[in-house]
Amino acid sequence: MKKLSLVDKGFLLSESRETPMHVGGVSLYTLPDGANESEFLHGLAANMRDAQTLLPPFGDRLKTGRLGVPGPTYWQPDPALDMEYHVRHSALPRPGRYRELFTLVSRLHGTLLDRSRPLWEMHLIEGLQNRQFAVYTKTHHAAVDGARSTHVARSMLSADPSHRLEESPLSLNTWEKYKANLSLGKRPDYSTSEMRDVTDVLKASLDSGANIFHAVKGFANAWSGRNDKLALPHLNVPRTPLNSNVDGARRFVAQSWPFARIKAVAKAFDGTFNDAVLAMCAGALRQYLQTHAELPQESLKAMVPVSVRQPGDVDSGNAVAAISADLATTVADPAERFRQIQSSVQAGKDYYGEMSPSERELFFMIIQAPTMLLVPTGLISRLPAYNVAISNVPGIRQPMYWNGARMDGSYPLSIVMDGMALNITLVTYDQNVDFGIIACRRSLPLVQRLIDYMEEALQELEDAAGIQAKVTKVAKQRPAAKRKSTSANKAKPKPKAKPKKVRGRSTKPKQ
Amino acid sequence: MKKLSLVDKGFLLSESRETPMHVGGVSLYTLPDGANESEFLHGLAANMRDAQTLLPPFGDRLKTGRLGVPGPTYWQPDPALDMEYHVRHSALPRPGRYRELFTLVSRLHGTLLDRSRPLWEMHLIEGLQNRQFAVYTKTHHAAVDGARSTHVARSMLSADPSHRLEESPLSLNTWEKYKANLSLGKRPDYSTSEMRDVTDVLKASLDSGANIFHAVKGFANAWSGRNDKLALPHLNVPRTPLNSNVDGARRFVAQSWPFARIKAVAKAFDGTFNDAVLAMCAGALRQYLQTHAELPQESLKAMVPVSVRQPGDVDSGNAVAAISADLATTVADPAERFRQIQSSVQAGKDYYGEMSPSERELFFMIIQAPTMLLVPTGLISRLPAYNVAISNVPGIRQPMYWNGARMDGSYPLSIVMDGMALNITLVTYDQNVDFGIIACRRSLPLVQRLIDYMEEALQELEDAAGIQAKVTKVAKQRPAAKRKSTSANKAKPKPKAKPKKVRGRSTKPKQ
Repeated sequence: MKKLSLVDKGFLLSESRETPMHVGGVSLYTLPDGANESEFLHGLAANMRDAQTLLPPFGDRLKTGRLGVPGPTYWQPDPALDMEYHVRHSALPRPGRYRELFTLVSRLHGTLLDRSRPLWEMHLIEGLQNRQFAVYTKTHHAAVDGARSTHVARSMLSADPSHRLEESPLSLNTWEKYKANLSLGKRPDYSTSEMRDVTDVLKASLDSGANIFHAVKGFANAWSGRNDKLALPHLNVPRTPLNSNVDGARRFVAQSWPFARIKAVAKAFDGTFNDAVLAMCAGALRQYLQTHAELPQESLKAMVPVSVRQPGDVDSGNAVAAISADLATTVADPAERFRQIQSSVQAGKDYYGEMSPSERELFFMIIQAPTMLLVPTGLISRLPAYNVAISNVPGIRQPMYWNGARMDGSYPLSIVMDGMALNITLVTYDQNVDFGIIACRRSLPLVQRLIDYMEEALQELEDAAGIQAKVTKVAKQRPAAKRKSTSANKAKPKPKAKPKKVRGRSTKPKQ
Repeated sequence: MKKLSLVDKGFLLSESRETPMHVGGVSLYTLPDGANESEFLHGLAANMRDAQTLLPPFGDRLKTGRLGVPGPTYWQPDPALDMEYHVRHSALPRPGRYRELFTLVSRLHGTLLDRSRPLWEMHLIEGLQNRQFAVYTKTHHAAVDGARSTHVARSMLSADPSHRLEESPLSLNTWEKYKANLSLGKRPDYSTSEMRDVTDVLKASLDSGANIFHAVKGFANAWSGRNDKLALPHLNVPRTPLNSNVDGARRFVAQSWPFARIKAVAKAFDGTFNDAVLAMCAGALRQYLQTHAELPQESLKAMVPVSVRQPGDVDSGNAVAAISADLATTVADPAERFRQIQSSVQAGKDYYGEMSPSERELFFMIIQAPTMLLVPTGLISRLPAYNVAISNVPGIRQPMYWNGARMDGSYPLSIVMDGMALNITLVTYDQNVDFGIIACRRSLPLVQRLIDYMEEALQELEDAAGIQAKVTKVAKQRPAAKRKSTSANKAKPKPKAKPKKVRGRSTKPKQ
């Protein structure tokens, strides 16, 4: 029986029906040629359920004593493990566009996991157009951190279309094989190490035996500018609809953009890929607030995990610091906005560059535990330390296959909570950047517009940089009456010649 | 702003993620000839969402003060009512049998409603075989009692296939029209009266200003045999797997039987329809416990709402008392079992026949509020007052249509909770009796077998009575490899000649 760490318990304790503490992802696949959808998905489900012993804690449930979760809490094998419960079939109503998929995934992400069972679900979703199917996974943050869930997802994929899994990707055997392959690679992977108990890290980097809440509060104060020793460069976080309290319902939207387009903008402005992503999001958020709410007098601040040890490296093991980036949303000129964001990110990196490795590790723990950090200290609703979280997760830069089905995209669904009603997480995959945007349904009823605004913001940046780029056609949230919906619903949006200076035509907000 | 009654608040206070306090129903319909499924369902959804003002509290959400639900709590119009959230499209994975439908409905019934919105959801479900579609509704017991939700469901139906609703069935206009039609009928309907505040009833029938918990505990004591004044005839409730604590996951199964078959058994034994239903359930539960657990030394007791004022009348307004019926599960002979059940029910009715109308009204309140009754008093897990609830809800005895779609059946989903892991509710509709069985997924993993056992029990009763009846083919939970699944999946099971004395062939438990 493995004992839960304080961080893991924090996720359980701070969970409510309005703020479930699970993370998720939805992946799109194309059926192998000639495969029957129903048979293929039943085969995948059977394979997922086929495990002698599951990788902990996928077969374990919580065991608490008299005190409940606040007392000693352990993972214990579920005596009546019910794989049919965890691995599920779902289907989309016709016409099976991404609109219907996002609606279903929003609902699935808004319900709580059952605490009397292992804390995960997987949904195989049929009924998509164009021979695609989708897989939605949901894992409690107390059970599996982001890094490990990425690894589990990878362990089921292969670059070889003819590769077939022998046992469940969640089985201990498959995991051992995957780890063995990893260690044949260049170096041990930071994120697989046993670093989850934040108390150990705290003891090493701060006072020994420090009160964890006190220590965490110190970092919270730093983020909100009330701690001299750890002051962060960017303060004055404005209040916006992004920072209201949330209810239990969600809206999810997703979209892919070609990596090359965003990278070209970064290069033109002599910035990083991450700077360009932030500039794209900043432009979109500026337009969203201008159109649907009110643009605040102060610029939005974004919590951004950044790579500090080896700039430019896209491997997840290095994203060990979180900075509060100024999104320069008060600036109308896209080029100037890019430069202000860039210098703000650089200032943040410089600051963290001076930190010790153990301090960076501590930050790595903390950015995985936003609840632990902000909810117990009661700071979150009074002092929004940032307006939005924008996380860039390095992914696999080549096509991958699950038992022969090509993965077309993979979109993360993170956590929203009181004071942080919007989360944007992106993963690089193959030639694309896959954005997953999750929001509180009540606070941001029109969050799907962000997709259009992001395309528009990217085009503005390309114009400002003098780039002749190809426009990405965004997936329609609503059926376009006069438009062929088939191309709008392709997984890989078809690039077409960009109609320069007539952007208004295709990027105007749509009802 | 309407204030919530104590009973309604009881449902909110006692709710947990393991024991959601909503009731539901799933109805099957056949598409009108020539109708396109997708278009027809989108039309129904558009109609459901089309309301100027909703019947309270379908447009209202909870408003509490500093004290939360224990303090003053009101219904208040939702300022951002989101009908797209409440009226949803869902779909079944192929092959779209009842098995897939029951799986989806089990999942939908096992998640909590969002308390920051009006406490109801409706799911239009496509993808069923044989041109059928399904509708699952879910309403919080704090918002709408069983009687009212039956009325709302009826207000959308018509005996005329050509009838079309002008506005949403949930609109205040539709409700007013429905009520006006009702009052043209024979007499005002008891269950539409404003009788929900149990404190008023308690004040009238017990001491004035009585402490509600104290008063309710008195009835709980009666049910468990510790109150002389209100002692109930049947005590000695055994412990079974039906009475374990529950987790949040559910299993739902449903099946229709011809009303005439069950009624013929009742007639042969000189009993009521309800006696025959209980005998059928008793036989099935006896077999379930014998096969999958252990048959207790004492007979199971069932909580059964019975009609006391006008025996034989099937109108819901009369089901004002609840008795604890002895299911005689220790008795092997079906005829003798029937007679013991019958006399136990009669004893209960005699007892309640001596009660005053206000006492009966109080019981009517209380059987709607099992939580209020048993959970706060802490009695439920120590003293199961009954092993299972079996409720017979009078329905409409003719074919009904929703905008031209024929309703083929309507199956209730009630509440299970700690100590009561199984609920059987049946509705008479047209020529059938529609059984909805809901259970805790962990406590009764094989609850779908009850369907087979109920058919077997009915055949035993027919044999004992010397009736040459026609067998009802039960819907298969698992695809039968060697069997034509089309007929097994019809809404109206095809009657066929009964193979006398070879029942084992079709009623053996199946994997």
